[in-house]
Amino acid sequence: MTTTLIREDLHAQIESRVQRVFDDHVTRSAAYGTEYTALWRASAESARGGKLLRPRLLIEMHAALLGDPGAPATLCADAIVEIAAAVEILHYAFLLHDDVIDGDVHRRGRPNLIGLLRDARPDLDAKAAQHWGTTGAILMGDLLLSTVHQMFARVDSDRTTRNRLLDLLDHTITETVAGEYADVALSDHAITPDLQTILTMTAQKTATYTFEFPLRVAAVVAGLPAETEAALAVVGQHLGAAFQLQDDALSVFGDAAEHGKEAYSDLREGKETALIAYARLTGAWNSIQPRFGDPDLTPQDGAAIRDHLRRCGAESYVRHLIDERIAAARSAIADEAAPLPAAARETLLTLADRIEGRLS
Amino acid sequence: MTTTLIREDLHAQIESRVQRVFDDHVTRSAAYGTEYTALWRASAESARGGKLLRPRLLIEMHAALLGDPGAPATLCADAIVEIAAAVEILHYAFLLHDDVIDGDVHRRGRPNLIGLLRDARPDLDAKAAQHWGTTGAILMGDLLLSTVHQMFARVDSDRTTRNRLLDLLDHTITETVAGEYADVALSDHAITPDLQTILTMTAQKTATYTFEFPLRVAAVVAGLPAETEAALAVVGQHLGAAFQLQDDALSVFGDAAEHGKEAYSDLREGKETALIAYARLTGAWNSIQPRFGDPDLTPQDGAAIRDHLRRCGAESYVRHLIDERIAAARSAIADEAAPLPAAARETLLTLADRIEGRLS
Repeated sequence: MTTTLIREDLHAQIESRVQRVFDDHVTRSAAYGTEYTALWRASAESARGGKLLRPRLLIEMHAALLGDPGAPATLCADAIVEIAAAVEILHYAFLLHDDVIDGDVHRRGRPNLIGLLRDARPDLDAKAAQHWGTTGAILMGDLLLSTVHQMFARVDSDRTTRNRLLDLLDHTITETVAGEYADVALSDHAITPDLQTILTMTAQKTATYTFEFPLRVAAVVAGLPAETEAALAVVGQHLGAAFQLQDDALSVFGDAAEHGKEAYSDLREGKETALIAYARLTGAWNSIQPRFGDPDLTPQDGAAIRDHLRRCGAESYVRHLIDERIAAARSAIADEAAPLPAAARETLLTLADRIEGRLS
Repeated sequence: MTTTLIREDLHAQIESRVQRVFDDHVTRSAAYGTEYTALWRASAESARGGKLLRPRLLIEMHAALLGDPGAPATLCADAIVEIAAAVEILHYAFLLHDDVIDGDVHRRGRPNLIGLLRDARPDLDAKAAQHWGTTGAILMGDLLLSTVHQMFARVDSDRTTRNRLLDLLDHTITETVAGEYADVALSDHAITPDLQTILTMTAQKTATYTFEFPLRVAAVVAGLPAETEAALAVVGQHLGAAFQLQDDALSVFGDAAEHGKEAYSDLREGKETALIAYARLTGAWNSIQPRFGDPDLTPQDGAAIRDHLRRCGAESYVRHLIDERIAAARSAIADEAAPLPAAARETLLTLADRIEGRLS
């Protein structure tokens, strides 16, 4: 999904702030040998070109909440860009450890950090090169997680605002990690893949840090009360859930050329999604199960499973869930009791529209 | 090494503060399902019973730096215990990711967190159980690293002190990670195992966070100037290096019953130490190399390598290095230009004596 709601110069500002964090670390890394510098360079390289969905959402919502651009702000503009950059870096840190846990060496059709580090060492045997890549990704995740906390802890603000931001960061990391742990429990068959578990897991693993977090941060840095944060949290959870369910649907029913991921990758990886949880409850499961999670799944196999998922009602069930969450978000946005300024409601409605219609 | 310099009630205070951090997380974890709660419980369990070397050093040095116990402190006593507990939790977070990277499932003769989580799931196949344990350790390391930053960021102090503490935390994490990365580079044969690289690596990986960090934190929380921090950093680096070299020597020449680790474990794991780097430069290497790093190394093999390391001069070389670092520490402690109160010098000298004579 491309967001074009905020001014392009803001996108450039966030991008350059994120890159500056990496550049500063590259400079400092010189004291620790060439390998360590190479690790920071490879990380800077692989973090480049993100869509900046989360920091853009933060800044956009912050502007909408303040309404009047001349209104007194709790944080100066630089501090807001700083926190927005930290939100993006947190996303990148999560992706690194997620890829380590899943054993992935690609992301969006390019080698990820593990792949980059591994491929840079053709002199090592395959096992050592893989270990080298994995080690780099674990340690870089730690360094970036630390960086995010440093950025939050040093934000130029009063104590109350800083503590609210630290609380939010804590809440977000807890939810995301708990969701990730549940996700692995599902794929390791350590817990039963029922529908409710899967919906809770995806909300925790993705919706919280992608939608709830930037929206609530925007409220905090705008100096608005806990009630505004709470109203935005509700909208963020609905939109985040819809967004993630769409991801699941796009991976099976979408156009790979458009969504950019490998066709049927979720089916090949045996990802436990709401689609699959629904299908398990139907007679179609007997036809789906044999090839589900097969690393050698062909496009033909994928298309066959797709057709089963369509015929057994899994697709319409998930589309219905998406519609429900979009409707719940719209209703929360319109709620007169929610302490949201008109501009914020408009921005959220536009966001809901974009999510509803997204194809990538 | 047992430190008995500080009052036992302080040890109990730190221990109970560390456990309270885990207990609070166990309580909060109830919102995220039984698996996530089990992860926190297992972590609390496996973190219990540590020697608290680092936080004790911090509190001991803080008391010595202040001299008069009635002197005005920059931080209240509770805040100092809080930071000391955070220093211990950082150690535990490092151990978790270190074990993931090394593929270890034991630590000090007991299953580590990976082993505990794996063994708790006999219902899973071996590969899934191992993955489950590793995932838990990666994610718990992330949670604890975040916890440490939260504790530092919220410390009840003025802005200057808090920023000094955050700077120190940043420096320490950078050094430790760079050292860990170099350690893996050595064992993956991604860099040449020369003596200087190995000495630098161990200083970064262990000496910084074990000695320099607690000593400098003590200076900061006592409100002392950067010069005091710098003087303590020098002493800490010398003592830390001596301590680590002793660890290497004890693993080969020490009494396993006394030092508590498996006999010859460093030789079995193929750990690149100063002993090995020295031996590589001698004719003895041809006799050592064939069994070095052999997972099936017997006690007889270990004893044979030990004798080679003794005869080729590696042992006396490393003992000489230890003596040098202890002497350098004593000289830095005695340096009249160093802005250290007499009580602090005494505490540091006692620490140097203890390190010099340690057998475990």
